[in-house]
Amino acid sequence: MLRVDRMEIIPVLGIGLAKEGDDVAELIMDGVKKSGINLEDGDVVVVAHSLVSKAEGKIVKLDEVTPSHHAIHLAKATGKDPRHVETVLRNAAKILRIGHGVIICETHHGFVCANAGVDASNSGGEAFLITLPDDPDESAHRIRSGLRRLAGVDVAVVITDSWGRPFRKGAVNVAIGCSGINPLLDLRGRKDLYGRVLRSKIICVVDQIAAAAGLVMGEADEGTPAAVVKGLQYDKTNIPARTIIREEDEDLFR
Amino acid sequence: MLRVDRMEIIPVLGIGLAKEGDDVAELIMDGVKKSGINLEDGDVVVVAHSLVSKAEGKIVKLDEVTPSHHAIHLAKATGKDPRHVETVLRNAAKILRIGHGVIICETHHGFVCANAGVDASNSGGEAFLITLPDDPDESAHRIRSGLRRLAGVDVAVVITDSWGRPFRKGAVNVAIGCSGINPLLDLRGRKDLYGRVLRSKIICVVDQIAAAAGLVMGEADEGTPAAVVKGLQYDKTNIPARTIIREEDEDLFR
Repeated sequence: MLRVDRMEIIPVLGIGLAKEGDDVAELIMDGVKKSGINLEDGDVVVVAHSLVSKAEGKIVKLDEVTPSHHAIHLAKATGKDPRHVETVLRNAAKILRIGHGVIICETHHGFVCANAGVDASNSGGEAFLITLPDDPDESAHRIRSGLRRLAGVDVAVVITDSWGRPFRKGAVNVAIGCSGINPLLDLRGRKDLYGRVLRSKIICVVDQIAAAAGLVMGEADEGTPAAVVKGLQYDKTNIPARTIIREEDEDLFR
Repeated sequence: MLRVDRMEIIPVLGIGLAKEGDDVAELIMDGVKKSGINLEDGDVVVVAHSLVSKAEGKIVKLDEVTPSHHAIHLAKATGKDPRHVETVLRNAAKILRIGHGVIICETHHGFVCANAGVDASNSGGEAFLITLPDDPDESAHRIRSGLRRLAGVDVAVVITDSWGRPFRKGAVNVAIGCSGINPLLDLRGRKDLYGRVLRSKIICVVDQIAAAAGLVMGEADEGTPAAVVKGLQYDKTNIPARTIIREEDEDLFR
């Protein structure tokens, strides 16, 4: 029989609702223990940005937002709350498209996503919005250091959000921050099954990890904001997720 | 301790190189046995389209392709072999963008991807190209029926390809065909962690499954054209993957 390397994706249950100032690594370790997971060197810990954003205080109270004229105008076009649109505009470096109830933005990080990542789900109720962490790679680095300190393990950390995309319906979990992993796997120069040298193949490993974890990380009421991936072989070179961003002049759709 | 549902992703090793007329379900069952995998009801079998395409004879001999004037012109613009470009054009219903060495097409199925899914990797050598199956949902259905017949199991089948996308570098595995599964999970109406009703959340489950399997299904010389996902809860309603395609008038980037 062949030697088969199984990969396991284990939801981290029992993580409580985070509040500003919480240590995300502690919240995760608490869930890891409750879930009976044996966290080991080389595991990948996947964390929903909502947990990170809350701990980092990236919550906006709608009551405290005064919408600009531009936001009021866009709110009419998109059917959104003007204060929600104002928050989107504050988190956007550029607006790319408007339509079908969404504002496709380039965020200050350079990510292209709907509504600049500003979300009303899991924000804490109707009166609040949640925004992306200021520097998700730095957040991932902090969580990774925290897990090393708390559990003595060297893991990779991937921070995710659930985003729609052009051409295809439905959102998929993608990576917005990472630490302890090379987000891209460059296969160029390696050979295919028939010995032909691959010329253009680069795989976005962290987006595949994010999507895989998305299968066990619910966003609805049973919400599970973290998962542990075991048994994955990956390049441990520490390269930030912001390197995934395709430069505008190499992008055919911006 | 909490009850944790682990998900496992197991590469199917030992599948030989496929040739036209091969029964894909037989090839997969052969690998499943060699890999010591216990295929069970409810598992998801993920298959790279290259295996399916080869068995379905979707291989193009470059020698037999006569490029049109249009193909010769585009070949100069993209640095590709004119016969490769001709094959792309024959597999495209529409060209959306040209640049950076790729021709972004809408395929006859309606998928938007680079080079209409025509690939020189794993095609059988420099003299060949591989194209997408004519009807990947039907291919998935046939494989699923074959696995039921051969192994007496009721599984879901997802057929994948590895595609680049706008805004983000690197390819990810996506679903181009499926059977025995609802590709989209509609969470609208369910409540978030704080009891707020989700208004817009639809998850593309099969793309997340494809990406997860992509982590163990290498494209380089160690190539593993199939994987088995165990322990995933999914909606078994049989809906084709073509329903993932975002209609042009709902797409902000076409």
